[in-house]
Amino acid sequence: MKRRQFLTAAGAGAASMVAAPAIAQTAPAIKWRLTSSFPKQLDTIYGTALIFSKYVAEATDGKFDIQCFAAGELVPGLAALDAVSNATVECAQTPTYFYIGKDPTLGYGTGMPFGLNARQQHSWWHFAGGGDLINEALAKFNTIAMPIGNSGCQMGGFFRKEIREVADLSGLKFRVGGYGGRVLAKLGVVPQQVAPGDIYPALERGTLDAAEFVGPYDDEKLGLHKIAKYYYYPGFWEGGAMMHLCINLAKWNELPKHYQAIVRNAAEAANNWMLAKYDAVNAPALKRIVAGGGELKGFPLPVMEAALKATNELNAEIAATNPLFKKTMESHDAYRGDVLQWWQVGELQFDTLMVRTRGRG
Amino acid sequence: MKRRQFLTAAGAGAASMVAAPAIAQTAPAIKWRLTSSFPKQLDTIYGTALIFSKYVAEATDGKFDIQCFAAGELVPGLAALDAVSNATVECAQTPTYFYIGKDPTLGYGTGMPFGLNARQQHSWWHFAGGGDLINEALAKFNTIAMPIGNSGCQMGGFFRKEIREVADLSGLKFRVGGYGGRVLAKLGVVPQQVAPGDIYPALERGTLDAAEFVGPYDDEKLGLHKIAKYYYYPGFWEGGAMMHLCINLAKWNELPKHYQAIVRNAAEAANNWMLAKYDAVNAPALKRIVAGGGELKGFPLPVMEAALKATNELNAEIAATNPLFKKTMESHDAYRGDVLQWWQVGELQFDTLMVRTRGRG
Repeated sequence: MKRRQFLTAAGAGAASMVAAPAIAQTAPAIKWRLTSSFPKQLDTIYGTALIFSKYVAEATDGKFDIQCFAAGELVPGLAALDAVSNATVECAQTPTYFYIGKDPTLGYGTGMPFGLNARQQHSWWHFAGGGDLINEALAKFNTIAMPIGNSGCQMGGFFRKEIREVADLSGLKFRVGGYGGRVLAKLGVVPQQVAPGDIYPALERGTLDAAEFVGPYDDEKLGLHKIAKYYYYPGFWEGGAMMHLCINLAKWNELPKHYQAIVRNAAEAANNWMLAKYDAVNAPALKRIVAGGGELKGFPLPVMEAALKATNELNAEIAATNPLFKKTMESHDAYRGDVLQWWQVGELQFDTLMVRTRGRG
Repeated sequence: MKRRQFLTAAGAGAASMVAAPAIAQTAPAIKWRLTSSFPKQLDTIYGTALIFSKYVAEATDGKFDIQCFAAGELVPGLAALDAVSNATVECAQTPTYFYIGKDPTLGYGTGMPFGLNARQQHSWWHFAGGGDLINEALAKFNTIAMPIGNSGCQMGGFFRKEIREVADLSGLKFRVGGYGGRVLAKLGVVPQQVAPGDIYPALERGTLDAAEFVGPYDDEKLGLHKIAKYYYYPGFWEGGAMMHLCINLAKWNELPKHYQAIVRNAAEAANNWMLAKYDAVNAPALKRIVAGGGELKGFPLPVMEAALKATNELNAEIAATNPLFKKTMESHDAYRGDVLQWWQVGELQFDTLMVRTRGRG
């Protein structure tokens, strides 16, 4: 705003002198700070922030410099949205579902239990109104968000004992957060908040019965299969967790239009980097976990059916008092209903065929 | 090359004068032409070329202008690689599998029968050596390629009669091209080349027994379900067809480094646009096709098993005489074997759960 006023005032009597400043302004040197909600140890997720910053620097010949900070270096991981909102930093790499305490609508930005897979979430975001709805929810935080990665379907975590029926969830001290934790609490789970580095000793002492983290590549590093060998799938509360680049709205509006375009494209490219890397590193990690004693188990269908029912109930409770949540839920559910009919004859058939014939290809 | 010589010669005695030219050179005005292998009627695929061009223009403040031409406007659709190779155009939007006649290795660039799905193909390309191998195959055509879209899993096409067993393929006049056509020929199919606009009358007259095109959104426009009602899935010869931005290598090397970065990021963003759009428009189109009389049928497993065996045989025959094909096949198959083990407990379980519980979400 100020810069525009300055240019107008200066330009009024100096039309013949603007050539050089105009060129200079087309590619201004800009420094931003990005705070991530993730630690450096999560090298694929945090690495996505670094890749994004690199892509932006490359595309601007080094003029737009975005310095990345891991969780805790500037602000705690879960304070990223606040830091963007009050312009402590210009931007953050953080999934909007970390902020369901501020507005549960933001859960749909990343993905809800029994929600969309990674590809479907991206399609809903760009072509079925999802992105607009999430940005409507973020406007009160002076923030605009765009996709910058996805984990793909996550695992259900490591359990010390088998889960054979819904009753086995009763009193289960399970390290699980967010909306998934709220849903499972309806089935008797006692959700626990435990920092990643503290999970192993907590499982060993029995102060935790189970713990979920991400997928095989990140999970392996925690070594949990050595003390809680049942490795459950799928993480039905995180079928595809979209990450976001959250940007302070005023800072975003100050950017030259072509820098905005560069940021958008770099974020889409970084999005693909993260998902493609996970799809390359999760498979070998899964094999190592199994070779190291992990035992793969699928959640029983009745357990997942009960969780679906609990999810529907929780969604309905929130929708009754939160109009934007309701609107977003309806958009999400309508898209999901449609896309699954197509998935059923398309992707799912192909993937099933390929898994079934694996080893003969 | 010439420009670099010029700069060296001019710069030698004029070091103090370079400031303004240096700024000008950082964002040079460049005009390129892109030829697409696709007609404008395929508005999602061809639209991806337009979106890519738009993203590049936006990111360079209009300075890098890539003009798009549909198939036939400059050169025929299948002549796109030649046009890039001999620098008739700077770049093309074309899938490398259109050029298996030049080198069957290029089939792996887009996707082979019983190959990878869209996400897996992207991961293999960037993180498991796929892109390097395809670019090795393209070097002899003075071309560099990068991903610029994916159709997702395609449909198997419209059939006038049901396919109940392998014997039903014998003598079947099927409009199917590429490597899939070669594989099916081993099972008795007589592959036919028919332009999209001629398929309907050919099916009506019976000079065609079946025809495949893309997926529901594009297929619906041809109206084939009105005369060949059995709509088969999945298109096991195209589980996820990657499109490519093919660029003349000399033209690519002439670009400033930050323009190269802008092109790469814009192509990744356009890649997502295409896949996300298809994932939004295919589902409603599928419903309309079924409402209009189309009858969904899955290929019988023995038919697909026979096609898998034929694919393996054809691959082995080519690998015996083409070392780069062999190397690429081994890279592809190793990645596929690994990633499917992860898919089996991750994505496939989640997608199956979601399809199974659809309507109760």
